[in-house]
Amino acid sequence: MSTQTKLVVIHGPNLNLLGTRETSIYGTCSLDAVNESILKASKEIGMKAAIHQSNSEGAIIDLIHDCGAEDILIINPGAYTHTSVAIRDAIAGTSVSAIEVHLSNIHAREEFRQKSLIAPVCKGQICGFGPDSYLLAVMAAATIVRERENG
Amino acid sequence: MSTQTKLVVIHGPNLNLLGTRETSIYGTCSLDAVNESILKASKEIGMKAAIHQSNSEGAIIDLIHDCGAEDILIINPGAYTHTSVAIRDAIAGTSVSAIEVHLSNIHAREEFRQKSLIAPVCKGQICGFGPDSYLLAVMAAATIVRERENG
Amino acid sequence: MSTQTKLVVIHGPNLNLLGTRETSIYGTCSLDAVNESILKASKEIGMKAAIHQSNSEGAIIDLIHDCGAEDILIINPGAYTHTSVAIRDAIAGTSVSAIEVHLSNIHAREEFRQKSLIAPVCKGQICGFGPDSYLLAVMAAATIVRERENG
Amino acid sequence: MSTQTKLVVIHGPNLNLLGTRETSIYGTCSLDAVNESILKASKEIGMKAAIHQSNSEGAIIDLIHDCGAEDILIINPGAYTHTSVAIRDAIAGTSVSAIEVHLSNIHAREEFRQKSLIAPVCKGQICGFGPDSYLLAVMAAATIVRERENG
Amino acid sequence: MSTQTKLVVIHGPNLNLLGTRETSIYGTCSLDAVNESILKASKEIGMKAAIHQSNSEGAIIDLIHDCGAEDILIINPGAYTHTSVAIRDAIAGTSVSAIEVHLSNIHAREEFRQKSLIAPVCKGQICGFGPDSYLLAVMAAATIVRERENG
Amino acid sequence: MSTQTKLVVIHGPNLNLLGTRETSIYGTCSLDAVNESILKASKEIGMKAAIHQSNSEGAIIDLIHDCGAEDILIINPGAYTHTSVAIRDAIAGTSVSAIEVHLSNIHAREEFRQKSLIAPVCKGQICGFGPDSYLLAVMAAATIVRERENG
Amino acid sequence: MSTQTKLVVIHGPNLNLLGTRETSIYGTCSLDAVNESILKASKEIGMKAAIHQSNSEGAIIDLIHDCGAEDILIINPGAYTHTSVAIRDAIAGTSVSAIEVHLSNIHAREEFRQKSLIAPVCKGQICGFGPDSYLLAVMAAATIVRERENG
Amino acid sequence: MSTQTKLVVIHGPNLNLLGTRETSIYGTCSLDAVNESILKASKEIGMKAAIHQSNSEGAIIDLIHDCGAEDILIINPGAYTHTSVAIRDAIAGTSVSAIEVHLSNIHAREEFRQKSLIAPVCKGQICGFGPDSYLLAVMAAATIVRERENG
Amino acid sequence: MSTQTKLVVIHGPNLNLLGTRETSIYGTCSLDAVNESILKASKEIGMKAAIHQSNSEGAIIDLIHDCGAEDILIINPGAYTHTSVAIRDAIAGTSVSAIEVHLSNIHAREEFRQKSLIAPVCKGQICGFGPDSYLLAVMAAATIVRERENG
Amino acid sequence: MSTQTKLVVIHGPNLNLLGTRETSIYGTCSLDAVNESILKASKEIGMKAAIHQSNSEGAIIDLIHDCGAEDILIINPGAYTHTSVAIRDAIAGTSVSAIEVHLSNIHAREEFRQKSLIAPVCKGQICGFGPDSYLLAVMAAATIVRERENG
Amino acid sequence: MSTQTKLVVIHGPNLNLLGTRETSIYGTCSLDAVNESILKASKEIGMKAAIHQSNSEGAIIDLIHDCGAEDILIINPGAYTHTSVAIRDAIAGTSVSAIEVHLSNIHAREEFRQKSLIAPVCKGQICGFGPDSYLLAVMAAATIVRERENG
Amino acid sequence: MSTQTKLVVIHGPNLNLLGTRETSIYGTCSLDAVNESILKASKEIGMKAAIHQSNSEGAIIDLIHDCGAEDILIINPGAYTHTSVAIRDAIAGTSVSAIEVHLSNIHAREEFRQKSLIAPVCKGQICGFGPDSYLLAVMAAATIVRERENG
Repeated sequence: MSTQTKLVVIHGPNLNLLGTRETSIYGTCSLDAVNESILKASKEIGMKAAIHQSNSEGAIIDLIHDCGAEDILIINPGAYTHTSVAIRDAIAGTSVSAIEVHLSNIHAREEFRQKSLIAPVCKGQICGFGPDSYLLAVMAAATIVRERENG
Repeated sequence: MSTQTKLVVIHGPNLNLLGTRETSIYGTCSLDAVNESILKASKEIGMKAAIHQSNSEGAIIDLIHDCGAEDILIINPGAYTHTSVAIRDAIAGTSVSAIEVHLSNIHAREEFRQKSLIAPVCKGQICGFGPDSYLLAVMAAATIVRERENG
Repeated sequence: MSTQTKLVVIHGPNLNLLGTRETSIYGTCSLDAVNESILKASKEIGMKAAIHQSNSEGAIIDLIHDCGAEDILIINPGAYTHTSVAIRDAIAGTSVSAIEVHLSNIHAREEFRQKSLIAPVCKGQICGFGPDSYLLAVMAAATIVRERENG
Repeated sequence: MSTQTKLVVIHGPNLNLLGTRETSIYGTCSLDAVNESILKASKEIGMKAAIHQSNSEGAIIDLIHDCGAEDILIINPGAYTHTSVAIRDAIAGTSVSAIEVHLSNIHAREEFRQKSLIAPVCKGQICGFGPDSYLLAVMAAATIVRERENG
Repeated sequence: MSTQTKLVVIHGPNLNLLGTRETSIYGTCSLDAVNESILKASKEIGMKAAIHQSNSEGAIIDLIHDCGAEDILIINPGAYTHTSVAIRDAIAGTSVSAIEVHLSNIHAREEFRQKSLIAPVCKGQICGFGPDSYLLAVMAAATIVRERENG
Repeated sequence: MSTQTKLVVIHGPNLNLLGTRETSIYGTCSLDAVNESILKASKEIGMKAAIHQSNSEGAIIDLIHDCGAEDILIINPGAYTHTSVAIRDAIAGTSVSAIEVHLSNIHAREEFRQKSLIAPVCKGQICGFGPDSYLLAVMAAATIVRERENG
Repeated sequence: MSTQTKLVVIHGPNLNLLGTRETSIYGTCSLDAVNESILKASKEIGMKAAIHQSNSEGAIIDLIHDCGAEDILIINPGAYTHTSVAIRDAIAGTSVSAIEVHLSNIHAREEFRQKSLIAPVCKGQICGFGPDSYLLAVMAAATIVRERENG
Repeated sequence: MSTQTKLVVIHGPNLNLLGTRETSIYGTCSLDAVNESILKASKEIGMKAAIHQSNSEGAIIDLIHDCGAEDILIINPGAYTHTSVAIRDAIAGTSVSAIEVHLSNIHAREEFRQKSLIAPVCKGQICGFGPDSYLLAVMAAATIVRERENG
Repeated sequence: MSTQTKLVVIHGPNLNLLGTRETSIYGTCSLDAVNESILKASKEIGMKAAIHQSNSEGAIIDLIHDCGAEDILIINPGAYTHTSVAIRDAIAGTSVSAIEVHLSNIHAREEFRQKSLIAPVCKGQICGFGPDSYLLAVMAAATIVRERENG
Repeated sequence: MSTQTKLVVIHGPNLNLLGTRETSIYGTCSLDAVNESILKASKEIGMKAAIHQSNSEGAIIDLIHDCGAEDILIINPGAYTHTSVAIRDAIAGTSVSAIEVHLSNIHAREEFRQKSLIAPVCKGQICGFGPDSYLLAVMAAATIVRERENG
Repeated sequence: MSTQTKLVVIHGPNLNLLGTRETSIYGTCSLDAVNESILKASKEIGMKAAIHQSNSEGAIIDLIHDCGAEDILIINPGAYTHTSVAIRDAIAGTSVSAIEVHLSNIHAREEFRQKSLIAPVCKGQICGFGPDSYLLAVMAAATIVRERENG
Repeated sequence: MSTQTKLVVIHGPNLNLLGTRETSIYGTCSLDAVNESILKASKEIGMKAAIHQSNSEGAIIDLIHDCGAEDILIINPGAYTHTSVAIRDAIAGTSVSAIEVHLSNIHAREEFRQKSLIAPVCKGQICGFGPDSYLLAVMAAATIVRERENG
């Protein structure tokens, strides 16, 4: 697998609370534990992963700008999913392939959480599988890389 | 892995055209080829898969009713995603765990394709990865089974 | 009471699950038990009842077309209540008197379940009384027949 | 049948005009005649009925507050169906079981008459059967009482 | 001019404050002064006028019910213009000819004041001319009576 | 009464058809007959009236621009009532006092006819009294002139 | 075929540009060429055709007023389709039978082009067949005439 | 004319009732009579016609899939016009040229009948001419074939 | 503190049920207990309080009209918060300073309870603190009086 | 600078009132003075300017059609900005580059003035700078010409 | 009073401008003066107060995360009230009790300021009392603490 | 020209990508090149320019607060145009004159990009001219300064 392709994982606002916050919705697994799983899964598919968390829309935009054109972005935009045109434009403005991820099934929640401003500029969306959503995204990233190599 | 848990895969309306239809959106891979990949992936995780395709809303409801309570349903409801309360009720009315799958990223398409009536009664949604959406769903099914066994 | 007037009862999609499905909403009484009550009540008012269940919109339309012009239709369109213009047109297109019935109080549920496309072409609507909704509809049918005879 | 359970019937605004008003919609039967039928039907099922009519939202709220917790309320809120949150709250705020009744099929009339603010706090709704709507409600009340006694 | 035709004038809620309230919108003329002008104008066209003011929706409905079938109703429903289906039904339910009147030009005010629930059941609407709106309505009443006599 | 104040009456599109067109809505009185009544009524209150009819939005704007600042405009904008921001701006842009007039009760017709773009820049609106709407507007104009003289 | 029935064809705004304008949508055929085909087709069915083009809403209204009561109007209202209540009223106000025609399939274009204010007062609508839309309308006119003669 | 091009005509739900149903809207001509006219008209333009009717959405999708790529589809989707994304996708997913046909002028009916989900994937729409709508569609089909041969 | 300034407290519809009604939302404290606390708090800030409760919109308007221009109104309009333009106009029409109070946090409840028609004519709104909402309003009244004295 | 490129300036409805009309919004500068500035600015950038004003939608369309393909159109559509699809189509249908100009900041005014139907077919929009808006548009035109020459 | 409970006050965006900015809406009192009052009031009820101001959504989220579970948060989210789902989630995700405060009566301002995304996750809302809104919130905090202690 | 007036230019989120990002929409000119042109143009009109770029909403608010009351702000709020009430309030809260600028014609793009929350508090808006939009804004700034000096 291509060595220059990096996996960039961005956790959006409030995800630092993971495992302590609204556990009936988001579960009891901490962000550190999730990150460990992501790193392990990335390793298994032979990719390096850089993981970030930020509560700031501006900082998230900066992180997206830092992605290399060949990188694959796994992003859980948290609440910014529903309000940030700026993050959408950041993804569209770089050539990174993006995968939107959510722990909860946003389509089963409040009306205003069912619309993603980010998804239209992503390759796809995976939601509802708890921390496994990230691991499925890592696998999805692997298929994107494979297609690039074959394609 | 539990032997009594079956993977039921339902392809909704027009998916029989796969590989011939609007290939710029849906790609050139035929439904038979997709099904083969699904069967292979299911085998790898040690589950039996039963695969169906139907263009009829009523027939799809019947297929859902036939699922065992322990089964896992991977469903691509096609156009019924956006119009069928009856399929939604069929899933809610049986105790099967369901995963909604789409080949294309429905959130990047026409307004009326961005709203799923089915998703709120599913565990999660995976869309935008072409035929790989199904394979990711199979992996998601594996994690559901694993959790059941651990949980 | 007129012998040529038949009571046609149509149960729409997912009602075959009755008694097993979402029992907190729909109760634990099976469809067979409901049908027995309907038959008994019909007998008491001196009418013959023909009872059908289908998950298919097209099949339900066919059943409506089969009604005699003098028949009285008791229909629980289930989820098609909210999505089927075709069933609405089938009722409007035949001269059968129709009574819309729901087990649950649809006006107390999700927004999208509060609007019936079928009700505007029915004589009336009865909802919220569980299986008794059907029995009230049978009594309503009796008053319709009585009015015809008097009127 | 329980003797302490009273049937409270409330006719809302303009129903005092019954039989004289818009007879093409509401028929020619007077309110007195309707009330007589209600009393007769109540007697048949062994319940006492207290019948009221008022054009005043506030007075209707007072009447609802006067219901005993075991009483069953049959209410035709007339035009207040579509505008009165206060009557809705009065029903929700007392423990009376309520049945919403309409002479006409409100779902077949103007858009603004199709939405009931009252129905979501009632057990069910019966509409479209003219004065028979009330009689069906009396029968529905009987089934509620029977369930309480059995339940 | 027909002697049995009475002019019934109903001032709705808050009009008792006239001349003291929000004078930049409604002017400084008191309700008594307005009523005197109405009585004088009625006399000039040879009609008797009965004038009422009430802040209660129910009382206004009662007043409308009291109108004779040949009477002409001049009604300024005040704030009930925009919220009262019950007053609308009261007018529709009696055979009185009604003229809706407003002191201010409601079409030039807040969005929610531009829609009248009452106007659709009136013969016409006159608004924006201050107390003169009532006098124009009296003249309009005269033309209605004249047409009846000629028609 | 002031001699320099002229009454300008503008009949909008399709009003030349009056008396021949949709007579169930607009009556059988011709535009010429209406105009004669207007002239007679104007004379009675001592004002000169200039009457125009045009089917062209641009021509109507030109006519409005031709009004003197002291003139009073009686305008029936016909269908342009609901679509012409330009006529609205023409009235707002000149200092003429305007009275909107309609033959039919626009508030009792199709939804799209209930909203006037013109009314917010007029002193008031009179509608529903057939040709008498114009005569009431002439009387309203008289009160405006009287107020100016007193005021 | 009736000799007194004339075919009146009105091309609305911007249709004079036909063949030069947005040829990817409207094709390369000039308005003159279209008119020739219309005249030829009219001749074949034995009707006289009078053809007009105007960019002015008012002028189009005048042209409609000029139609004889027995005439048949084929109208492509162009952009006025979506904005002109006045043209709608002109058609409704004369007794001419009208057929709405569009070169492009308006239902496949921008949201605001999918709603026709004119269609509800026409006999029917034909759109999407380029210049052939007009020829199909001529044939439709022939069937209307035939029905009149038979009917 | 090309012999391999077939005309496929699909009548949607409730059209089997034609001639018996809501005759004030749809006329008294039976479906058999309509079909005969279609066959005759097809013959005249030298095309074979295959005619189908179904009340089932799924069956209609199957029929569309059966069309050859060179065929021309004349479809009256009936009530599915307004609710079926699946039929829309079936037409888009095959390469058949489609013409949408309606007996009545859907743009002059209830709001919900004015929007077609099918039209955007058709070449054009013809509505309002009763059974003649089909014959005009056959003529439209002829022009499509002619263009193909010329083009 | 000014002795001529009175505190007028109005409890709207259904508040007489306080302590018995929907206690999970409104708590178990009775209206009498609440009123005692209000009187005690008023005394502490040196103001007289007059407390009223009514279920009638008209009666509430009358109570508002009775306020002196210097009085301060603490009003919990209950369900009329969301439906009564007339109460809004009553407050705007008198010169009393008003404070809107709610026991529950209306912004956290059903959509239709989140919009207050009354708030725009009040000085401020306090909600969500149960009976303490009233006490906070009394303190707010004190600051208003203090400002008047200082201002 | 290219000599064959002409600057066409079109002032829409009511702009002939400039300097006399609603001066608090539009200022006191007359249209003649504005036009002089435009001519002077055009001269400075070496372009000929042809300036027109019309209150008629149809006449404005004609003026747009008269533009040469190389011309640059500066258009202030006035009130037609918000209502004229026909002017939009006229611009789209000719190959002229258009710049939309407004004296006032339309985005800071009434809701219905914030949406421009014309802007989507223009190169850009300049608004809010009073008569200077036109001069900025002349400068913008200069940059367009320069790009053409360079590009 | 409990010593471990801290009062955390967060002033949102632009509140640093207080006393200088839009003084007709927000008054002339500076933020420092407001803070002093808050500190004094907190002291009086025996609580420690930590006061923060930030213009950054991300920084505000961080501040909320820093709250102890027993703390009480008084937050004026400023403009983020209407746009920030992320701040809402931050409050919901920590166990802090929150009180929303506004200087102005947001319900009396522009439509878009009347909806709070934050209020649904707060205990209550206090708005419209200028700087006193904060002091009332401090008193509200005192009652929350008292209730906790009373249990 | 006044020396104490500074030109403050703020480029919002993602504009640092200029020249590399979505070049079909935004062109190939880099932000540095744009800034150089701005500085040169500012110099020509004798003003100092301070230029900033930030991806953070909070930082942009801080920059706006730093503007002197006499300064002129040229702001391209990028994606925050459509989502930031806080930036709007920052501009309204300082006395700086602001000019909104966009590279692309936002009115010709997605629906959600056509509404600016910022424009209502700016003097005007210039969009669609690529980097020249900024230069036109500099010229607009010059006219504002000139008016101040004259005014």
